[in-house]
Amino acid sequence: MTRHTRQLHLNAFLMNTGHHEASWRLPESNPYAHVELDHYIRLARTAERGTFDSLFLADGPQLWSNLAQRPAGALEPLTLLTALATATEHIGLIATASTSYNSPYNLARKFASLDIISGGRAGWNIVTTAGAEAARNFGLEHEPAHAERYARAAEFLDVALKLWDSWEDDAIVADKAAGVWGDDAKIHPPQHQGTYFSVAGALNVPRSPQGYPLLVQAGSSEDGKAFAARYAEAVFTAQQTLGDAQEFYKDLKSRTAAAGRDPEHIKVLPGIVPVLGSTEAEARANERLLEDNIVYTHGVDRLERLLQLPPNTLELDAPLPADLPPEDSIEGAKSRYTLVVELARRDRLTVRQLIGRLGGGRGHLTFAGTPEQVADAIETWFTQGAADGFNIMPAVLPSGLDAFVDHVVPILRTRGLLRTEYGPRTTLRERYGLPRPANQYTRPTTQSAQPALV
Amino acid sequence: MTRHTRQLHLNAFLMNTGHHEASWRLPESNPYAHVELDHYIRLARTAERGTFDSLFLADGPQLWSNLAQRPAGALEPLTLLTALATATEHIGLIATASTSYNSPYNLARKFASLDIISGGRAGWNIVTTAGAEAARNFGLEHEPAHAERYARAAEFLDVALKLWDSWEDDAIVADKAAGVWGDDAKIHPPQHQGTYFSVAGALNVPRSPQGYPLLVQAGSSEDGKAFAARYAEAVFTAQQTLGDAQEFYKDLKSRTAAAGRDPEHIKVLPGIVPVLGSTEAEARANERLLEDNIVYTHGVDRLERLLQLPPNTLELDAPLPADLPPEDSIEGAKSRYTLVVELARRDRLTVRQLIGRLGGGRGHLTFAGTPEQVADAIETWFTQGAADGFNIMPAVLPSGLDAFVDHVVPILRTRGLLRTEYGPRTTLRERYGLPRPANQYTRPTTQSAQPALV
Repeated sequence: MTRHTRQLHLNAFLMNTGHHEASWRLPESNPYAHVELDHYIRLARTAERGTFDSLFLADGPQLWSNLAQRPAGALEPLTLLTALATATEHIGLIATASTSYNSPYNLARKFASLDIISGGRAGWNIVTTAGAEAARNFGLEHEPAHAERYARAAEFLDVALKLWDSWEDDAIVADKAAGVWGDDAKIHPPQHQGTYFSVAGALNVPRSPQGYPLLVQAGSSEDGKAFAARYAEAVFTAQQTLGDAQEFYKDLKSRTAAAGRDPEHIKVLPGIVPVLGSTEAEARANERLLEDNIVYTHGVDRLERLLQLPPNTLELDAPLPADLPPEDSIEGAKSRYTLVVELARRDRLTVRQLIGRLGGGRGHLTFAGTPEQVADAIETWFTQGAADGFNIMPAVLPSGLDAFVDHVVPILRTRGLLRTEYGPRTTLRERYGLPRPANQYTRPTTQSAQPALV
Repeated sequence: MTRHTRQLHLNAFLMNTGHHEASWRLPESNPYAHVELDHYIRLARTAERGTFDSLFLADGPQLWSNLAQRPAGALEPLTLLTALATATEHIGLIATASTSYNSPYNLARKFASLDIISGGRAGWNIVTTAGAEAARNFGLEHEPAHAERYARAAEFLDVALKLWDSWEDDAIVADKAAGVWGDDAKIHPPQHQGTYFSVAGALNVPRSPQGYPLLVQAGSSEDGKAFAARYAEAVFTAQQTLGDAQEFYKDLKSRTAAAGRDPEHIKVLPGIVPVLGSTEAEARANERLLEDNIVYTHGVDRLERLLQLPPNTLELDAPLPADLPPEDSIEGAKSRYTLVVELARRDRLTVRQLIGRLGGGRGHLTFAGTPEQVADAIETWFTQGAADGFNIMPAVLPSGLDAFVDHVVPILRTRGLLRTEYGPRTTLRERYGLPRPANQYTRPTTQSAQPALV
């Protein structure tokens, strides 16, 4: 393999005992996994054995579900990823954090700190956080409107980018003899006064190895795609069919070009929930075992909330009601809403069947098959203009990640799609084939070729 | 040594190249130390070799000083301590975080996460953050008044304590057969509506090994002492004389008793900046070397800001002006202001001499001497009602901590004042001889003897 071959990017989306809602009930699963560092260290090292580009943690600042239904709560992602930074060497570390419920100064500082500590491996999955539950944990009575959340997110990014650039790379002089530690002319306080934020001063941490964390985004609504085209360097997306994925891919690349950016500088990673078996029948049996462990009354409860229906509206063995609200009226996870409704209509699913399909990946593509079949699907999407890589979401953890790395990764390597080793240490952004961003305040003539902290 | 002997508590206060402002100019010092994880790992392991109770990082959400003057910026403490958690086994990890510029939900979550990841070794140095610079990084035009900052801090603590107790210790049931993961009756959403905060929902992380982080405080103003008496379990303080330290110690213990708490449950740790030499003359020479590296014009600049004087007011070889503002009018670091003014008046110091004295410890006691002399001072304060332990602030790092651990610690051990080994793993709170706090929502009759996460 040479650097000229287009390479597949793999991200491991880690979630306690796995992405299938019933995974915690399997005999092999540790129901305390979500608060055990060793569980995550094991997963991170497995992903590194599989030469993944990165790993990723979702998050929201609220207690998601009823405790009765499934594992709830999680270690805060930036904290957990910092611990994983010291247990790994190469893999990127992508944390979800909300622009609606953080201050730019605090969050920019934390990501810069993680980027320094990890040697340039930090990534930020930028979310605007749907739901009234989160709003009520931060002094608001109601969820901010979808459009307002995105307007705030855009201003948040502008402020954060100013903060990350507020130290030029060569601001530290370290002249002991003269007693001059730094060059104040290389510090650029944002002096930002905007609609949502006022931030005067420079960040209190030097510019990090990557300049700033890899910017990742996962919203697929109109607002979400516009935001991604402007800021995102990698996009996670839920797509059920090759056709839909191709359309999304093409659309996002065009929007990115229209925003004045190189479309190669945004990587599209659909989610896939692989359920593996050494034969197709074994894979289907593994899938069935998970479905048999679903508590369907819980599934109805969650589906009603996603569709913004009153409790006890849905019947398990009937299709979805015909008169659902239009996507426009949804203030939460708009694109997920549409995907779920379209999936149910397209495949004429009953509520029970729909819950079974969603139980695995919450709208992401669940694919049960042999390692060859999973590799085939990945290769098809990758070579047919639907993906630059994949967000791998094992149904059960750690076993599902073990199986993927032991059985699918070797096939992808044999086909020349995936690196066989990491090689020298690089930053996460280099791993994704993206350039280190220039500092917006540095004059081109004085820009240092060797950033101080790399 | 038995458990019945009163034992000295030692905290290592880590600060880039050391607490002396000129430390970075020494040939041995690494001027990039403040952003190098390996530097802090080395310090943490040295402190652990010295069987310290804890280590500690100061912080403020603003760029402190002019870069020209001395190392500026720092890794965010909670992030750095999480990385250190994985590089150490026993030592407590105390992070500074501001109640004025954080949300209770986010901060409570981060501390709970660090407490889980570290196996119960998290501590929180609660600060209200003086200064307009910080305020302007968080949307405010002016610094909130001192009293208002403390009122907000008290409400912040009340909310955080509710959040940390929002999961009872036995909320996780993990009944795979029944498909019931947790017991929703053991979840207690704060439903807090107050002056500064509204926080409805339960925390999204289970109760941590310590219940919540060790609560530490370092403000010595009237507001600060009242706050400490109500909430703090350990207090860092700057005291220049045995008499002052005894008075502070007695006062704080009385206030704690008056607040209805056991005065044994608040540990008082004055700061000391040891400058060691194998002879007294060598120690003085080491101190002189540091003083010779002070840039006095920088010192004047900082002193004028502390004293809230206009620039170019102070003359280097004259005493402080007679007509300084009263402490009442100071909205920033009130107690530090008074300590500095009293030090200058008591010892009839010129501005130059005062800067020399402050350069070492910013108001903390600098003590130059042999290891025996430093151990004597520590023993005297410890046995004469002035301290439960010490906040050790080496003038130069890492060498000053090495010297303390190699030469002072063995003397303290020989005298039976300090543990010779850690013994079994314990929480930070147990290390300080404090009980694990009960959950405010758990009925005594149903309280579990074995918390789920310990």
